[in-house]
Amino acid sequence: MGEKPVMVVGMDDSEHSFYALEWTLEHLFGPSPPPFKLLIVHAKPTATSAIGLAGPGGADVLPYVEADLRKISSRIAEKAKKICSAKSVNDVVVEIVEGDARSVLCDAVEKHHASMLVVGSHGYGVLKRTVLGSVSDYCAHHAHCSVMIVKRPKIKA
Amino acid sequence: MGEKPVMVVGMDDSEHSFYALEWTLEHLFGPSPPPFKLLIVHAKPTATSAIGLAGPGGADVLPYVEADLRKISSRIAEKAKKICSAKSVNDVVVEIVEGDARSVLCDAVEKHHASMLVVGSHGYGVLKRTVLGSVSDYCAHHAHCSVMIVKRPKIKA
Repeated sequence: MGEKPVMVVGMDDSEHSFYALEWTLEHLFGPSPPPFKLLIVHAKPTATSAIGLAGPGGADVLPYVEADLRKISSRIAEKAKKICSAKSVNDVVVEIVEGDARSVLCDAVEKHHASMLVVGSHGYGVLKRTVLGSVSDYCAHHAHCSVMIVKRPKIKA
Repeated sequence: MGEKPVMVVGMDDSEHSFYALEWTLEHLFGPSPPPFKLLIVHAKPTATSAIGLAGPGGADVLPYVEADLRKISSRIAEKAKKICSAKSVNDVVVEIVEGDARSVLCDAVEKHHASMLVVGSHGYGVLKRTVLGSVSDYCAHHAHCSVMIVKRPKIKA
């Protein structure tokens, strides 16, 4: 049997990605023991990419942007750990990697020989799809492992 | 807790879809009890769609094509059930539905209020992708539930 398979869960600061983590723990982790070694990966944007469109003068605000991004990243890490421990999943590692989410997630799969990558999806919104749906699309095509795209159920009246 | 969530697994006669079923039972079904109500769905092509390009005279062979398609469908159903019982998953229903795999699978998700749809993927082949990859792509975008795309690991020398 050897080691447990590795599951990478990609997280950003969207509600969708927290939902994806909760859904995954709920549906794919039994009461115990956890069937996967859980690795949560957050792709932290670089300050320059975040203000890329700000034009000249942008350099002045770089340190502030960078500080903000760091704050967001650690908030995500904290929140993710809290969600896991609420489900009694304690064997979890959170990695914060600077870069574009698409390549950060696919690289993490390679590096850790993951069996499975979980990403959230905006599902139906056309506008939002172009931003965040593109991460799940890209990973579905390029990650060298099985990919789970978690969608929030449609709210029915 | 109420009823178990429903998992739909889409099957055709490709090695990839049998791999997807085996992978799913291995990774997402613990020793026991099964965490999902398992529904295997096979989209059986219609005879006319299967010989759609045969041109005039095709009508003569329709009954033979139909008989062949039926045989293939029941072989898939048998093989899928065998894979499940080998993993001690016995609470499984196999549905054979005539139609295009993309709409058959998305419809099955709706009809059974599935929480999760599993499909195999050809992963890397460019040519094959256009045929079978399109099913996983379509479902990832259109199924109203979380979608798992199972890929076979790359064979490393």
